[in-house]
Amino acid sequence: MVDIATRVWNHKWKIDPIVRSLIDTDFYKLLMCQSVFHNKPDTRVAFSLINRSKSVRLADLVDEGELREQLDNVRSLSLSRGESTFLRGNTFYGKRQMFRPDFMAWLEALRLPPYHLEKRDGQYELTFEGPWPEVMLWEVPALAILMELRSRAVMRDMGRFELQVLYARAMTKLWEKVERLRAHPGLTIADFGTRRRHSFLWQDWCVQAMMEGLGASFTGTSNCLIAMRREVEAIGTNAHELPMVYAALAETDEELAEAPYRVLADWHEEHEGNLRIILPDTYGTEGFLRRAPDWLAGWTGVRIDSGDPVVGAETAIKWWKERGEDPREKRVIFSDGLDVDTMIDLYEAFRERVRVSFGWGTLLTNDFRGLVKDDALAPFSLVCKAVSANGRPTVKLSDNPRKATGPLAEIERYKRVFGVGEQKPMDVTVFDGLGGAVFGGLGRRISCLSGRARGILPIALPAIQTG
Amino acid sequence: MVDIATRVWNHKWKIDPIVRSLIDTDFYKLLMCQSVFHNKPDTRVAFSLINRSKSVRLADLVDEGELREQLDNVRSLSLSRGESTFLRGNTFYGKRQMFRPDFMAWLEALRLPPYHLEKRDGQYELTFEGPWPEVMLWEVPALAILMELRSRAVMRDMGRFELQVLYARAMTKLWEKVERLRAHPGLTIADFGTRRRHSFLWQDWCVQAMMEGLGASFTGTSNCLIAMRREVEAIGTNAHELPMVYAALAETDEELAEAPYRVLADWHEEHEGNLRIILPDTYGTEGFLRRAPDWLAGWTGVRIDSGDPVVGAETAIKWWKERGEDPREKRVIFSDGLDVDTMIDLYEAFRERVRVSFGWGTLLTNDFRGLVKDDALAPFSLVCKAVSANGRPTVKLSDNPRKATGPLAEIERYKRVFGVGEQKPMDVTVFDGLGGAVFGGLGRRISCLSGRARGILPIALPAIQTG
Repeated sequence: MVDIATRVWNHKWKIDPIVRSLIDTDFYKLLMCQSVFHNKPDTRVAFSLINRSKSVRLADLVDEGELREQLDNVRSLSLSRGESTFLRGNTFYGKRQMFRPDFMAWLEALRLPPYHLEKRDGQYELTFEGPWPEVMLWEVPALAILMELRSRAVMRDMGRFELQVLYARAMTKLWEKVERLRAHPGLTIADFGTRRRHSFLWQDWCVQAMMEGLGASFTGTSNCLIAMRREVEAIGTNAHELPMVYAALAETDEELAEAPYRVLADWHEEHEGNLRIILPDTYGTEGFLRRAPDWLAGWTGVRIDSGDPVVGAETAIKWWKERGEDPREKRVIFSDGLDVDTMIDLYEAFRERVRVSFGWGTLLTNDFRGLVKDDALAPFSLVCKAVSANGRPTVKLSDNPRKATGPLAEIERYKRVFGVGEQKPMDVTVFDGLGGAVFGGLGRRISCLSGRARGILPIALPAIQTG
Repeated sequence: MVDIATRVWNHKWKIDPIVRSLIDTDFYKLLMCQSVFHNKPDTRVAFSLINRSKSVRLADLVDEGELREQLDNVRSLSLSRGESTFLRGNTFYGKRQMFRPDFMAWLEALRLPPYHLEKRDGQYELTFEGPWPEVMLWEVPALAILMELRSRAVMRDMGRFELQVLYARAMTKLWEKVERLRAHPGLTIADFGTRRRHSFLWQDWCVQAMMEGLGASFTGTSNCLIAMRREVEAIGTNAHELPMVYAALAETDEELAEAPYRVLADWHEEHEGNLRIILPDTYGTEGFLRRAPDWLAGWTGVRIDSGDPVVGAETAIKWWKERGEDPREKRVIFSDGLDVDTMIDLYEAFRERVRVSFGWGTLLTNDFRGLVKDDALAPFSLVCKAVSANGRPTVKLSDNPRKATGPLAEIERYKRVFGVGEQKPMDVTVFDGLGGAVFGGLGRRISCLSGRARGILPIALPAIQTG
């Protein structure tokens, strides 16, 4: 029977919204936002969209009017009563009232600040400027909107059954991954795929399929809206954004050297248990751990998000041992460029030495590789980063010099201050059939594992000029 | 928005019907029914279900109560006003008023006669007895019900996403066939898959996917209900049932020898053009054509439904030439055990010599091979045949002695009367991964083609005793 009222309601849609809620974002954004709200509320920042995959000419594919409509729609959103109740009332990481009343009152009143949009050389220049706690919440919706508008553009001329078969193929592809993963019952995974998802509906499907297919081995999703609706854990801790901005604010080299630890000292005060996860690679993992205060070795674990994941995990294990900690009590979260082979290899390599878990992103929620002509739906490497704080440029080094961002002179200064010597340049991988899109960290060679990665091509990514 | 009225309506369902219309049947059944209604209205026949795939223990899988509910539901159906309008008003094969008023009046009043159901050795014995024009309409719904109840039984314990992925895989599988077929634009296909379909909804999906994917190369469906709803041609002519019953009614050997031609003489009076398609294999193709009257060579084409399809087509071509006909003006319809490779091979082999077309059945609407554990959804070989007419057993020989049916003594008599000598036994094929189900004619070796058929095992099928 046709539900006439629903059809008539649908007629009235101005747009089919991509981001339909302020909490359609990653949980760690809200945790970090609360931390920033309390510790650095007056910092002014600029965030900027960077498409590392130059071959995907977004401004040619995506209509500017549609993009503006979607961005404007996000600016019209505010926290709903139910969303507020969820954030106030839910247990996150075993803790009630994770979000404090003053932060919640601020969040309930929040509307996102304006954006600045221009076209240049077939790409969009999209920037956000304003108070840090406001601007930072643009990152995830901005990325999700551009990813999904690109998907919609590619699918616009497809037939109805062609579309159904496209999704049938994508479902089959994901399910085959689930079937392989569940042969390793101790391998636990969370969805980290919000920002580069194919679409909201697809991410929601992927989460539900993981829930059914993996059962308790699926530990939750980074997406707060989906976590709320599907009644699973919201997962996440903190990201590079914090040390990058803290570092940019440093007045002296000494303050700069201390900045990453000040971030974690603020975090330490606020959080315990599984929320105490170190992200050590912003300015080089090895130096960071070498100079770390002892209290940091007491934290629950590390997240490995760049460089060779085996080297990263080994470095952390060695460090824990040196500080008298038992690595078997520690958690290592891998979250960089994962797919099934990598996860199984890493799990088997480390399962008896540490507590292993995975934050699976792009190749969970956007593995449309090989499904349409010219691989036009393959995921691509889009990021939205803090580029300045109180007028000073931010810098990121990571464990791969090809992923460094910031003005070259500042990069040299940071390398000196953080004692980063010669880093080994790592290939940034282009997948088979990816049609030239460049991935920041996906599928890199894993040095001492079985090395199932195929079709590795070296792509030199220049440091991005932001000064 | 929940459509409450629909949900409440759904609560009231006693069953989820498999056959939801009297015209959810093959078009040729209705054409033959009209012919029988006019020429042999008083003949009493018995039809019987025969599961050639003994390994599929239907009575263990399918609940008897559910089976009775579905069969009872068919007995409750009568032609709806819209269905009657369609049959009266539609143009079939370019002809208006294909169904005459007296037949339509009878059909509008029809309810299907009782059935007789028993369990034996893990199988259902299902028989129908009564006037030929009524009983014959049980064949297709009875088969479709048993096929779909078996599908439902296998899928009962599957999870929601597991089910979605199952259909995703089946859709992908069919679409890959469509993509291969449309590389051969002249290759025209009709859906002949009603009787052994996975389910009604799946057949309906397959037809729509073929419409979008093949365009004009998809010529229609044998299913009248789907043809009506999707506004495509209803396709079909006549079947073995007619010569089998005519032959059983013969009083003498001379009448028996004439029976297959009497069938076609009755048909010739009623139909022209593309409905004049000879089905020559009931008692051996070669002898049938050799003894055929000249007017039959003027018919539009032949349908090849058993034996080696290349031999069958070559036999017809040779016969047309002998009778002074130009084979390039004739149509050859292949309809036995087709899949993509076979169709492409046959099309390429004959496209310049005759007009080739295909009636694609089981592997269009039920190719769930390899999709679940133990291949429990693989199609199997279920038939429902006329076993007697006015108390006399029917006999079928076909072009493969392993497919012969009827009492052995009668088979010998028919072979003598029709001059059928030693026939070459053909393997009845078991597909890869079919889990032991036996196919009547699917995937047999094609002697002079590229022979892509794999995993051929000889299975001896004894003649079925019906006397």
